[in-house]
Amino acid sequence: MSAVPSREALAALRAALAAGGFEVASAPADTWSYGSDNSRRHAPPDLVAFPRTHDEVAAIVRLCRAERVPLTARGRGTATTGAAVPVMGGLVLSLERMTRILELRPDDRLMVVEAGCLNGAVQAAAAPHGLFWPPDPTSAEYCTVGGNVATNAGGPRSVKHGTTRDCVLGLRAVTGAGVELRTGVRTTKGVVGYDLTRLICGAEGTLAVVTEVTLELQPLPAATRTLRASYASAAAAGRAVAAVMRQPVVPCRVELLDRGSLEMVRADRPEAGLPEGVGALLLLEVDGSQQVLDQGLAAVAAAARVEGLVELRAARDDAESAALWAVRKALSPALRRVAPTKVNEDVVVPVSRLAELIERIEAIASDEATRIVCFGHAGNGNLHVNLMFDGAAPAEAAAAGRALAAVFRAVLALGGTLSGEHGIGSEKARFVGLELDATQMALMRTLKQAFDPDGILNPGKIFPL
Amino acid sequence: MSAVPSREALAALRAALAAGGFEVASAPADTWSYGSDNSRRHAPPDLVAFPRTHDEVAAIVRLCRAERVPLTARGRGTATTGAAVPVMGGLVLSLERMTRILELRPDDRLMVVEAGCLNGAVQAAAAPHGLFWPPDPTSAEYCTVGGNVATNAGGPRSVKHGTTRDCVLGLRAVTGAGVELRTGVRTTKGVVGYDLTRLICGAEGTLAVVTEVTLELQPLPAATRTLRASYASAAAAGRAVAAVMRQPVVPCRVELLDRGSLEMVRADRPEAGLPEGVGALLLLEVDGSQQVLDQGLAAVAAAARVEGLVELRAARDDAESAALWAVRKALSPALRRVAPTKVNEDVVVPVSRLAELIERIEAIASDEATRIVCFGHAGNGNLHVNLMFDGAAPAEAAAAGRALAAVFRAVLALGGTLSGEHGIGSEKARFVGLELDATQMALMRTLKQAFDPDGILNPGKIFPL
Repeated sequence: MSAVPSREALAALRAALAAGGFEVASAPADTWSYGSDNSRRHAPPDLVAFPRTHDEVAAIVRLCRAERVPLTARGRGTATTGAAVPVMGGLVLSLERMTRILELRPDDRLMVVEAGCLNGAVQAAAAPHGLFWPPDPTSAEYCTVGGNVATNAGGPRSVKHGTTRDCVLGLRAVTGAGVELRTGVRTTKGVVGYDLTRLICGAEGTLAVVTEVTLELQPLPAATRTLRASYASAAAAGRAVAAVMRQPVVPCRVELLDRGSLEMVRADRPEAGLPEGVGALLLLEVDGSQQVLDQGLAAVAAAARVEGLVELRAARDDAESAALWAVRKALSPALRRVAPTKVNEDVVVPVSRLAELIERIEAIASDEATRIVCFGHAGNGNLHVNLMFDGAAPAEAAAAGRALAAVFRAVLALGGTLSGEHGIGSEKARFVGLELDATQMALMRTLKQAFDPDGILNPGKIFPL
Repeated sequence: MSAVPSREALAALRAALAAGGFEVASAPADTWSYGSDNSRRHAPPDLVAFPRTHDEVAAIVRLCRAERVPLTARGRGTATTGAAVPVMGGLVLSLERMTRILELRPDDRLMVVEAGCLNGAVQAAAAPHGLFWPPDPTSAEYCTVGGNVATNAGGPRSVKHGTTRDCVLGLRAVTGAGVELRTGVRTTKGVVGYDLTRLICGAEGTLAVVTEVTLELQPLPAATRTLRASYASAAAAGRAVAAVMRQPVVPCRVELLDRGSLEMVRADRPEAGLPEGVGALLLLEVDGSQQVLDQGLAAVAAAARVEGLVELRAARDDAESAALWAVRKALSPALRRVAPTKVNEDVVVPVSRLAELIERIEAIASDEATRIVCFGHAGNGNLHVNLMFDGAAPAEAAAAGRALAAVFRAVLALGGTLSGEHGIGSEKARFVGLELDATQMALMRTLKQAFDPDGILNPGKIFPL
């Protein structure tokens, strides 16, 4: 497997890249910002390359392989897990100049884009044709499709419309051996050979560098309607989520805010008008044609009326919808002000265990005297667990570390998984062994070897070092 | 890779199975029927084992591996491609006694079943909870969940609700090394490590023997409504399919019958009342709550009104729906009477190319004087192409062979794929190289090696020999 590259290897790579006429940055001032992502980790790369074509990517991978220099592919660095941080140095391959939309075929509901194309650019191009691409991470405006593929990105909408792997038909990529790989189909069905497309989705750039993605688009719903349901407790909200998800009108968003989140919103935005005695809040959104929305909303509202409901408020128009969502939007900026350090995990449990997870997390927060705020995509059982502390204070950091490990153990004990849409990166690599057993890990390492024989692609990610 | 087992190897395996107390059949009268599937191929196995537990499966795989005897896992033999035919002899591992439903959790919309559980049994168990599992192949009543996973089965409903890989959360399996493998999650999101679940879906039992499957269930729609749209030509019907699939009300079935299919129905069922001058027919079904169905039907009907529409008939109740669907149901029995041999392929093209594919197939049928009847899941661009001939007449069989190759070339030229839901098996293995390039094939063979180091699992399938 790959290690930190030698001075000689880097010199040889630099010379080869120069000889090939590739656009490369190597001055520390130019490479510094390519050493971090949204995890607040930082490790400066030795080199950053800016390819403009698939063939340039393939050539650069081959040069790195020849010199055994680690290569970390990067979109716009919005990962929260250190997935884009070149922890062993080497070369960062930035896809930021490969942003073209190569094909848009509305009748086939498909689009082919270069990996550096922004998610927001996809939506902007699809919308005039009445289409959209489902993945909608918070960073949609400035994250890339390639990054979405690498982490199997989700977002609120995936509760109804699926995560990235459900909406990608095929890929063009370069393996760690520098070989072009085309996977998948241009159709919504296909079963010829093994599903390499979904194997690469979520692999965080450790199997291949994705250069082009064939996206499955979906018809844009004509309109949406929002519902805010306030509950006395997380347990009541959890029961409501299960009830909502069992009836036939699947909402396009089912977002939960826990007690800690609500306290922050209350302090920050008294005008949101949260009722008293609320232990958890759900924001529910239904999409569809104008005519069916009233019935859809009524069905979801009926399901949300479980014991413990404190208030149910339906938006009558888009302005009222926006006001209800403002509560959720206020949360991220508020979180940033609470504590110097925020660790944001995105665990998932079966929907029926959501309330229990929140209760366990409250106990852990109390035991370790660490402030934890939870919200997230409850319809998938996907909870964003935010640990707030001062990383510069050793005792606080240690307590947060213990709390995090306890949260992960609770998630697994409840039949859950460590990540729903952020992935593992380097932040969670040491916890992967809690979820995956030795057989799975060994098999995954063998697959890694098949795609990337010299282990040059994004070393130090997913697998514990 | 595996070859036909030696007499000595079989004797040693027989002795080991007897010593282990496994239930095994070896008399030709008992093993004969395990040599065929719905492809009309036949190759008798030397042995058939009937395990009742995961551990028994694992032990049998290890014994086969020790003696290098091929092992073909089998559900109920409904595959149309020879996927369940033990072309090299050896042992057939029948999952028919592993039919238990291990867990049913309506609040989490999941169910865990043994691989031999029938698809129909899953539906029967889920329905009282208002839930269903989307895959609905024609053989649903008597095909197994394990077989659905092996072929990534679809069916009409997958146009809205997805194919098997979209509705499977996790697997328990035994690799070709005889090792227990657990994959996936119990949640609707998850991105921890590589997606082994979807790699095994559609792998036709060549990577691992699946013993247990965690199914993602969906809420049962309250009701359905049907629409029959008759068009002057396949081109007009193709335009209608694209229009229907671009608007926001996704139908739960979009079935197409071509001119040849309609001729058969007309001869067989004059009471179906097909209008004159019809070159292609669409059956469209919308599902949802009673209240929204009228609007949904209206939206789909509006989209279906393209130039070339001859007649549009909406069912007013379930009886009228059944009458409209009777046209489609009459087709399979009618096909069986037309010619001694029927080759049924399930090619897919992008929706916008469907009409062109039908036209090309009409030309091929004429060139090769082979009767070809097409129908299928048009919303996915998934066409069942039925070549009707007398396999005992060498000239007819040769012409059909040329026609089939020409159909596959046309499909690939239109950006399509050779199979949407039946898979490759042994029937199509020699055509796989037309679709997959050398890099894909080499990588897939390496993955196969990682799961099944001695190549004992279902040899002769997917990969050309």
